[in-house]
Amino acid sequence: MLHKLFHPESVAIVGASNDPGKIGNVILKNLISSGYRGSIFPVNPSQDEIMGLKCYPDLKSIGHSIDLCVIAIPARSSVAVVQDCVSLNVPFIVMIPGGFAETGKDGKALQDRISSLIEGTETRIVGPNTVGIYVPGSGLNTTLTPTDRVQFPPAGNIAFISQSGALGLLTMDTISEFETGIHSFINVGNRSDLDELDILKYLASRSEVKGIALYLESIPRGNDFFRIMKTAVQSKPIVILKSGRTETAAKAALLHTASMATDDRVTEGIFRQLGIVRAQNETELMDFTRTLSYSRNAHGNRVAVVTSAGGVGVVTTDLLSLPAHPDLKMAEFSERTKDEIRKLIVAFGSVQNPVDITADGSVSQVNDILAILNEADEVDLIILYALPQTPKMTMDLVDVAVKWQRSGKPLLVGVLGFKEAKGMLLSLEQQHVPSFPSISRTVRSAEALAKYSFYMRRMKDAAV
Amino acid sequence: MLHKLFHPESVAIVGASNDPGKIGNVILKNLISSGYRGSIFPVNPSQDEIMGLKCYPDLKSIGHSIDLCVIAIPARSSVAVVQDCVSLNVPFIVMIPGGFAETGKDGKALQDRISSLIEGTETRIVGPNTVGIYVPGSGLNTTLTPTDRVQFPPAGNIAFISQSGALGLLTMDTISEFETGIHSFINVGNRSDLDELDILKYLASRSEVKGIALYLESIPRGNDFFRIMKTAVQSKPIVILKSGRTETAAKAALLHTASMATDDRVTEGIFRQLGIVRAQNETELMDFTRTLSYSRNAHGNRVAVVTSAGGVGVVTTDLLSLPAHPDLKMAEFSERTKDEIRKLIVAFGSVQNPVDITADGSVSQVNDILAILNEADEVDLIILYALPQTPKMTMDLVDVAVKWQRSGKPLLVGVLGFKEAKGMLLSLEQQHVPSFPSISRTVRSAEALAKYSFYMRRMKDAAV
Repeated sequence: MLHKLFHPESVAIVGASNDPGKIGNVILKNLISSGYRGSIFPVNPSQDEIMGLKCYPDLKSIGHSIDLCVIAIPARSSVAVVQDCVSLNVPFIVMIPGGFAETGKDGKALQDRISSLIEGTETRIVGPNTVGIYVPGSGLNTTLTPTDRVQFPPAGNIAFISQSGALGLLTMDTISEFETGIHSFINVGNRSDLDELDILKYLASRSEVKGIALYLESIPRGNDFFRIMKTAVQSKPIVILKSGRTETAAKAALLHTASMATDDRVTEGIFRQLGIVRAQNETELMDFTRTLSYSRNAHGNRVAVVTSAGGVGVVTTDLLSLPAHPDLKMAEFSERTKDEIRKLIVAFGSVQNPVDITADGSVSQVNDILAILNEADEVDLIILYALPQTPKMTMDLVDVAVKWQRSGKPLLVGVLGFKEAKGMLLSLEQQHVPSFPSISRTVRSAEALAKYSFYMRRMKDAAV
Repeated sequence: MLHKLFHPESVAIVGASNDPGKIGNVILKNLISSGYRGSIFPVNPSQDEIMGLKCYPDLKSIGHSIDLCVIAIPARSSVAVVQDCVSLNVPFIVMIPGGFAETGKDGKALQDRISSLIEGTETRIVGPNTVGIYVPGSGLNTTLTPTDRVQFPPAGNIAFISQSGALGLLTMDTISEFETGIHSFINVGNRSDLDELDILKYLASRSEVKGIALYLESIPRGNDFFRIMKTAVQSKPIVILKSGRTETAAKAALLHTASMATDDRVTEGIFRQLGIVRAQNETELMDFTRTLSYSRNAHGNRVAVVTSAGGVGVVTTDLLSLPAHPDLKMAEFSERTKDEIRKLIVAFGSVQNPVDITADGSVSQVNDILAILNEADEVDLIILYALPQTPKMTMDLVDVAVKWQRSGKPLLVGVLGFKEAKGMLLSLEQQHVPSFPSISRTVRSAEALAKYSFYMRRMKDAAV
């Protein structure tokens, strides 16, 4: 049970320091500034006090139970600290230092020593060679990156497990732009003990987690992967960016985190069979996870598109209809649907799919059209473009999108542009309407939802 | 010769108005606020003065030569104004109103009347059904969108011709985020007279234009297209987003701008033959045009990747090596290249391609590695990730990137993240280093450059 790893009542930081050049300084600063309210015990034999907190020479001197020990000293010295954690029954260690298996034979031997120390004990390790973990809901930030360099997202419902530390931190930084809420970020590093599957099993059991994003360079524990994922996907959507797909990339991955990549055709087959949605890059990883976490499932793959800019509708239709996107198709509107839309929009608009309400289109027209499309049997999901360039397309559009996204068919919103657009995207994200700053990101996310919905229907049918 | 369309010494706005609900109000406001320094003549029979400018009842009363007449009154009334322009030898009309060919038979008849009025005269028309034109270098903004809704980019070297008004405006708004400079934006609308080819021919002849972006829903004048493009691509890179590719999308395009789409296989073949680079969506349209405008050509397609985040290197290698990206391949480093890099970076970094300088990597290491790669025969172009999450990766990296991009092999820069990253992207863009906020946008743009470079080499070989 990993609950204390995510919600520790006390954290010791071995290697805490007043020196801003040290990782132990950054981690302590991050932990304090992220609003962690449990006990914090800095450990450093050469200090009495750090950042206003009493500092201890070693773990044993603390004299208080420790839920989580963060180790921020070099690899060689860390062995003794792991030994101390075991003696003190510290349940969790986050091991920051590199210099283990990823560096070659000697490092591998050092890592094996640590593994053998915890064998059969109650102590579990995240890392080594991890950038740390971040759990905004419990104010826990043990990452090694200064917050002036990487912004951390607010609390939310998306869990993010990453085999790569930097890619994980940079991706969190990126999604901070629209304040995408996350439940937790875990970088497993060299996964000497706890790996993605252990973490995922815990997260899948938590009702506050609505979706799980994984960055993997190699599949951990083949058979277990299948078994654990099979259960996990029943309870939440799982999106994976699995790299090391090509031979060249697999070699790069091996150099990066000391783990072998799996044949990509095998991976692809397993993902499909399990109902895992696959992302191609870091942008899709987060776009897809947001979409699946925020949306109910679609009953089919027929998409209706609503736009106030004709060209945006045409480009969307192209992307939707190209062979590269087999999971979606444009809905064919019934005469009744077209007639109803015709009553609402100007004569030179289009009542066919994509619906073009033109520059004359207003927020109330969008609302009425969404009502019609939600009733239309021939439509399974809806892409709405909220394009702020015309005067009648005000911020009220956000409320309309929120209303229909909560009550109706799955709704994805594309928002092109800069200042006005950013404001819209921020409001939509805060209210968990999946929204995207480009046509192709919108279409690709709709495709991910259609694919996931298909998996879920198949699973339900198989269960009957 | 279209010079006066882009640099008019005087502009009349028919339909200028004090009423903020009227398009003639927005256009006059935009023209004044964009810093246009020629003469402005508002025309409106019911006003004596608008925004501090003397207002005229009609064009004839102005008593001054007019280089450009912007018509911002309804379709039916505009016929008489075109007639006036012809009598007064006004060389250019920008016709804003919709209600012409795009609305059906009656509108088509009206458009034909206007075309016959200018036949054999010196008067040329942009539009009707255009959102206007924007030429920041001459302070000319005749677009109908309030600047509080859409931001306009600063002056620069990229020309943008769009068959869709809204898509064009929204794309300009989007690229304003990083202050991408543009030479001009022209929305041809229904192209009753001047079309993309006329505009393109002029722009291709201008030395200040470094690249041309086109959004097309249909290919104008088949044979002329081939002939004019063939000459134009000799002088600058041309990137086209051609939509209406699929049957469904072609139908949508027809409803949108009253023009038939071309069979996409034909289009694809023509583009390849001519050396036109094709974009799939509005993001790529601008990314590719920036890249080709800012970069010299590559001698081949072998890419070196430099990163401080291993995972970013692995994902990049994947994208580069997948069958979907046949135009690029990972460079295989010689032993000498590897040895030289080995001297610079930490032992657990990677000296193979992708070069992983790890979180320990510094700006001066990047500089030295770029020096090595620029000397290495096995490398044709370079992707550098400027990742601001580690302390040694400061803003000085921008200067290093600028230096090598100007003096060395083509260099593309990927920058992931939010606040720090945005600052870096802005600085890089200002100095014309092609830079992108995601891995896939970086890789796709490198691919566009490799493709374009291949076209240019082929063209040169053919000429020998």
